[in-house]
Amino acid sequence: MKTVTRPVAAQAELRARFREVRSFTEALASPLSAEDQTVQTMPDVSPTKWHRAHTTWFFETFVLGPHVPGHRDFDPDYRFLFNSYYEAVGPRHARPQRGTLTRPGIAEIASYRRAVDEAMDALLGQGLAPELEALIELGLNHEQQHQELMLMDIKHVLATSPLAPLYVDGPFPPLSAPAEGWIEHPGGVVTIGYDGDGFSFDNECPRHEELLTPFALGARLVSNGDWLEFMADGGYDKAELWMSDGWATVQSEGWEAPEYWALDARDIDGWSVQTLTGPRPVAPDEPVVHVSWYEADAFARWAGARLPCEAEWEVVAVEREPALSGVRTAPGLDLDGLAGPGLHPLSCGEQWAGSVWQWTASSYSPYPGFHPAPGAVGEYNGKFMVNQQVLRGGACVTPAGHTRGTYRNFFYPASRWPFTGLRLAVDR
Amino acid sequence: MKTVTRPVAAQAELRARFREVRSFTEALASPLSAEDQTVQTMPDVSPTKWHRAHTTWFFETFVLGPHVPGHRDFDPDYRFLFNSYYEAVGPRHARPQRGTLTRPGIAEIASYRRAVDEAMDALLGQGLAPELEALIELGLNHEQQHQELMLMDIKHVLATSPLAPLYVDGPFPPLSAPAEGWIEHPGGVVTIGYDGDGFSFDNECPRHEELLTPFALGARLVSNGDWLEFMADGGYDKAELWMSDGWATVQSEGWEAPEYWALDARDIDGWSVQTLTGPRPVAPDEPVVHVSWYEADAFARWAGARLPCEAEWEVVAVEREPALSGVRTAPGLDLDGLAGPGLHPLSCGEQWAGSVWQWTASSYSPYPGFHPAPGAVGEYNGKFMVNQQVLRGGACVTPAGHTRGTYRNFFYPASRWPFTGLRLAVDR
Amino acid sequence: MKTVTRPVAAQAELRARFREVRSFTEALASPLSAEDQTVQTMPDVSPTKWHRAHTTWFFETFVLGPHVPGHRDFDPDYRFLFNSYYEAVGPRHARPQRGTLTRPGIAEIASYRRAVDEAMDALLGQGLAPELEALIELGLNHEQQHQELMLMDIKHVLATSPLAPLYVDGPFPPLSAPAEGWIEHPGGVVTIGYDGDGFSFDNECPRHEELLTPFALGARLVSNGDWLEFMADGGYDKAELWMSDGWATVQSEGWEAPEYWALDARDIDGWSVQTLTGPRPVAPDEPVVHVSWYEADAFARWAGARLPCEAEWEVVAVEREPALSGVRTAPGLDLDGLAGPGLHPLSCGEQWAGSVWQWTASSYSPYPGFHPAPGAVGEYNGKFMVNQQVLRGGACVTPAGHTRGTYRNFFYPASRWPFTGLRLAVDR
Amino acid sequence: MKTVTRPVAAQAELRARFREVRSFTEALASPLSAEDQTVQTMPDVSPTKWHRAHTTWFFETFVLGPHVPGHRDFDPDYRFLFNSYYEAVGPRHARPQRGTLTRPGIAEIASYRRAVDEAMDALLGQGLAPELEALIELGLNHEQQHQELMLMDIKHVLATSPLAPLYVDGPFPPLSAPAEGWIEHPGGVVTIGYDGDGFSFDNECPRHEELLTPFALGARLVSNGDWLEFMADGGYDKAELWMSDGWATVQSEGWEAPEYWALDARDIDGWSVQTLTGPRPVAPDEPVVHVSWYEADAFARWAGARLPCEAEWEVVAVEREPALSGVRTAPGLDLDGLAGPGLHPLSCGEQWAGSVWQWTASSYSPYPGFHPAPGAVGEYNGKFMVNQQVLRGGACVTPAGHTRGTYRNFFYPASRWPFTGLRLAVDR
Repeated sequence: MKTVTRPVAAQAELRARFREVRSFTEALASPLSAEDQTVQTMPDVSPTKWHRAHTTWFFETFVLGPHVPGHRDFDPDYRFLFNSYYEAVGPRHARPQRGTLTRPGIAEIASYRRAVDEAMDALLGQGLAPELEALIELGLNHEQQHQELMLMDIKHVLATSPLAPLYVDGPFPPLSAPAEGWIEHPGGVVTIGYDGDGFSFDNECPRHEELLTPFALGARLVSNGDWLEFMADGGYDKAELWMSDGWATVQSEGWEAPEYWALDARDIDGWSVQTLTGPRPVAPDEPVVHVSWYEADAFARWAGARLPCEAEWEVVAVEREPALSGVRTAPGLDLDGLAGPGLHPLSCGEQWAGSVWQWTASSYSPYPGFHPAPGAVGEYNGKFMVNQQVLRGGACVTPAGHTRGTYRNFFYPASRWPFTGLRLAVDR
Repeated sequence: MKTVTRPVAAQAELRARFREVRSFTEALASPLSAEDQTVQTMPDVSPTKWHRAHTTWFFETFVLGPHVPGHRDFDPDYRFLFNSYYEAVGPRHARPQRGTLTRPGIAEIASYRRAVDEAMDALLGQGLAPELEALIELGLNHEQQHQELMLMDIKHVLATSPLAPLYVDGPFPPLSAPAEGWIEHPGGVVTIGYDGDGFSFDNECPRHEELLTPFALGARLVSNGDWLEFMADGGYDKAELWMSDGWATVQSEGWEAPEYWALDARDIDGWSVQTLTGPRPVAPDEPVVHVSWYEADAFARWAGARLPCEAEWEVVAVEREPALSGVRTAPGLDLDGLAGPGLHPLSCGEQWAGSVWQWTASSYSPYPGFHPAPGAVGEYNGKFMVNQQVLRGGACVTPAGHTRGTYRNFFYPASRWPFTGLRLAVDR
Repeated sequence: MKTVTRPVAAQAELRARFREVRSFTEALASPLSAEDQTVQTMPDVSPTKWHRAHTTWFFETFVLGPHVPGHRDFDPDYRFLFNSYYEAVGPRHARPQRGTLTRPGIAEIASYRRAVDEAMDALLGQGLAPELEALIELGLNHEQQHQELMLMDIKHVLATSPLAPLYVDGPFPPLSAPAEGWIEHPGGVVTIGYDGDGFSFDNECPRHEELLTPFALGARLVSNGDWLEFMADGGYDKAELWMSDGWATVQSEGWEAPEYWALDARDIDGWSVQTLTGPRPVAPDEPVVHVSWYEADAFARWAGARLPCEAEWEVVAVEREPALSGVRTAPGLDLDGLAGPGLHPLSCGEQWAGSVWQWTASSYSPYPGFHPAPGAVGEYNGKFMVNQQVLRGGACVTPAGHTRGTYRNFFYPASRWPFTGLRLAVDR
Repeated sequence: MKTVTRPVAAQAELRARFREVRSFTEALASPLSAEDQTVQTMPDVSPTKWHRAHTTWFFETFVLGPHVPGHRDFDPDYRFLFNSYYEAVGPRHARPQRGTLTRPGIAEIASYRRAVDEAMDALLGQGLAPELEALIELGLNHEQQHQELMLMDIKHVLATSPLAPLYVDGPFPPLSAPAEGWIEHPGGVVTIGYDGDGFSFDNECPRHEELLTPFALGARLVSNGDWLEFMADGGYDKAELWMSDGWATVQSEGWEAPEYWALDARDIDGWSVQTLTGPRPVAPDEPVVHVSWYEADAFARWAGARLPCEAEWEVVAVEREPALSGVRTAPGLDLDGLAGPGLHPLSCGEQWAGSVWQWTASSYSPYPGFHPAPGAVGEYNGKFMVNQQVLRGGACVTPAGHTRGTYRNFFYPASRWPFTGLRLAVDR
């Protein structure tokens, strides 16, 4: 967490924003039954009701408990049940066991959320120290991250069912043609990282210089059509295209297409893809999504290119898409529009944000001079800085404000359940 | 399934019994939330809602489909989703994945049950061939077995929760002193197995002779008090008491007490046990329950005794407890009394039935001359006749009519989640 | 171990027999390099050099240590390294790690054997108590069992190699036609188990009565030709033929033929089989070997028959093959003849012994009145009496004297690396 | 592999060097028995005889086969058996199965080596194209890497034995005091990577610029004494010091000290360490070795420092230790001195090379502009460029010429069996 000396927004604004973010979480859960919200289909996936409780736990544990005199925990067991990974807060319920937890049920969790919201609302009506406002802002950004995780996770839950139910119904957005060609950059010393007045995560700091050699980035994302060519050319069968660990994963997992793609033997139309609004044919113009870093890297090699490093991505993206340099200006997830642009990767323009997360060649590690925030919230980002790869941009399911040009997302190179795609880069 | 030439009961009786059994299943599920009914805490456990649907699937698949002209399946997907292990019926949803299935939810499953009940009720109003009546009777016995499984499984689900919620509330039954001493038997040629007019499973047949040497059986079950002595004497630490496979399991699982026992470090009163009505102190007079065959066998060796073989058990039990030779005469589970005698092992008299299942020294194998029933229902019992051990008697959670003297229950020797205990035997 | 009151043989005889058995072990190891003797290709397999040391450890631990005043262990570490499973002797080197042990090497193990042989030879030159002679006899029978295990294990080691090297070279024995038809038995009370003056294992006792219904046994073993028919009829694809656990194993292991069979795509002659004298075509007249209990049971069901129980087998075998009622009269393994009858299943006559071990329907459990021997050697047999199935007869690789009619061999139902086949039975 | 336009050395020199490197491999194997050379104690470890054969396979597959007309493979099976990971060469024997391979034995492998050496010697007597000389040079560097792997692997094999045998005997080298304090660097644009006339691996290229902020490096390696302080301060128990993946590894592996350290309960002197010359007490002044990246990173955090990135390391090391800028000038492993400086980390001076490999903060990824060599040898380095961390320097067991300043070693962050230690860095 960045330590800000001024509140992110005037206090009334923060209070309104708190209400808005919190109620949006509930809106996202509203299409789901108690059963849907309870199960865990793989260790990476958390139940929806767990997300709803954990984001609430964050405010109770880090804000209400330490900062509201006389605050009593809604339920003392929740401290244990809904801690995700904060070692400093104490022991916690094992992650792979989240799907065995039936109590509290969704009704109790709704009560929990209401109780914490009321206490927070009362707190937000008082004058707050800037540090506390910054902590609340961190909690809201944390909850927004979980909004995206909820959609990733529920997509996996629903797609695992032999019935393949949909999350919400609705029409697909009209598609416009994406940009084409390459965007050139001369390299040299560039500056990246966050240094503004708004909110950022600690891992985006400090702003610093990097040295780049000349390069070009693709003007659009790699599309489903590109991916079908890769598959048709035997991309999943050619060991020489793959990292050694990636090739082993292809073999052990039996990958032969992106996650959620299925080739129905009875379907003469070829590949279909499971989406949050149900199955439909693979659309060649849309960005490919739900590919791992291993696949993205192999594709790039097959295409005679490479993945961009994160500094290359950031310096070009911020220049081409001015909105990325601001705070919370990118269009956010809108429940009314869930079936529209919010749940499907867009395919118009240069697709810097709001479509799919873009794998980079950069492993996730600290920027020069990085220091994590003190205390338990310091575990937020820093302790994951090994074995993972950075993604940039933001996906169609990423909430507003999480599509900053400096934002660093990260996942393991075998992960496919996030909304992950890629953009190519080449040396010049 | 035994092929009967006469209906088990007059037709009106069967219709009434159908209603009674089916509604009792729903009564058992009624204390549980949608969340409770959805999860699976280990591969052996099935979700409550799955049990409710699977028992319904049995009637639709084996009765309505083949025997009601024009019957249309409630939902064609259910044939796949709710098949347990009948290879002849086609592919099925993998057992360890049952806990990932959120749809159909409990409301749809209630509708499914109602629809099948209505169709069955109409069928039961007509004149039926004896073979069809026998098939329906098998389905009811099958559902009653699942009633017990539901209680075993939900006990595991609730006990897995760090919150240890209870299933129902209620007082404990008053305990009367159990019998003491040994019941002698001279051995010789005895006759065991089912040969009556009522219902039985195919594995109880044919009735046949066995040759026994003189022996005696304990007049009561092994109690918690006995077990505490075994533990105090280092029973779980002495390799010489254990089968080799049992000792390996003790090591790998870290067993040091029966399942559901806990030694709270803060509790100066020693061991407590999780029950369906919540945790309470271990009662020395009650029969020990939730011990594996490995533990039962080691205990018997420690006690200078052995487990009875199933013929020894049956011949003595039928003689001592006349009710065991009849059909459905033992008192059954009663929802009103769930918190009373139904959910806790009784400790009065000789405890032949209605308390805990009693492990025997007999591996589960076919009786001489055994032939499974033809067709898919022939998979009911026969294909499990290796690697498992026979249990006799019946537990406090066993429904009425499943406490026949000839009834052969079976589980793997490491299983602890059924309501399993033991009675000793010695050579004379 | 049976407690004998008279020595098994006059003392000179025992001394000669000791030398003979011990040197035969070395002869069996002699075709193998140091490398061959060191590896472990699956947890069930032990390295040849381990067998050589462990059988020596048995004499040092149970005979020399307790009975020779002033005996000093050859190497104190060997007590730990070469204990197989005797809990009473103390901790031991983990079985699956035997293949990581490079020291002691084969030269040191040869020295160890020589040192123990000299000490034993000196002991055998004195007057010994009958109990001690019986213990030595047990040690010799133990070593003979390991001679068979060595051949089973080295067969697996060599067959695992992509080079498929042979153990010894040599011609195949001429085959004579096996018997045909069924051998009838009227049932009734029969007596089985050991009660003679010679050596037997404790699990063969006490001799006792069993009650049989009329039955018939196949006059010969099931042959490769029979098995090819089973395969051609889809035996490995028909779930209805299999026990549930067996079917799961077929799926998980991908079984489609007996162990060591291979269908070379380039080989127009069909199936070949890897043997200790190298690969050769499957011979239809030979008994099938290296099938698991699951396969044997499924085959019997396919054939409209069943496996015999062990009492059925014993009572008929002893009547038909008088040599089986005696002690050590069956022809033993002869190194000179290793490439002849010793390493391949024979196919002449009724094949009661000396061909393949015959799976029975009986699970391995204690006879009525069984008591294991006191002390550490009491762990020899008793602690394995669950989860395994009894085999009868004896294989081509079974040493002389281990083909008693009362001998009870046992393996897990999925085991295929022993020399295991089957004979059919039917009810009459 | 760097494409050189001029031979690495005059031809006679190359021929002499070939003989020297090849015979040193045999010298390293010479203290080991056939049994020692055969086993595999974990999947990362390869048998010594496999290393001897695989390094020979490299020359036969990449040099003799393509470049010597009429060359016939020594054994066609070896192409399959001794391929390590070259997908382009075809299928290969599975790595975790290397320890099951008994044939060819060490005698045959010695013959194989002699045959290939003779053919190579003949080839080296002719005029060779520079590309072929470069390929041979690559093969020699490859073999030298395997010399180090052999020592790492045999250390693990011997330490796994309960007997803890030693590899060779000998006195310990006298220790001189290491340097102290920090070496300052002003940062700025620096140039790293290889661009000389000698041999280098492809991953060291191209030489390129990087931008550094001011920093300082420790003047010596972290010592055993430092590590004991870390342990005494609860370093292995404080989650806040660890990466999340590292903490999970500490828990699952039960780490509480470096690999090969043991705390003998009977040993009042505390920790001892297993070395290639046997066990001895931990020496506080020596560099700590056999720690994983996770441990190195946690230690650095505990010390208020961090690990250096590889550019920081290289620019300082080359300046401080001029020998690191040359080719093969560092002292190499000398068989006569195996028991001396060759097998134990040195503790004198600044310890840039010849002591332990030094973990860096840099994940292993391609330098800007990197292109792997064409053909199968292109698989040498490039395909491992994810999930691993770079190490710099070189260890006491690293052969001469592998201690270049630009050399990039890499291992997974949980690896402890290489000779791995660390040096601290701090921001200025």
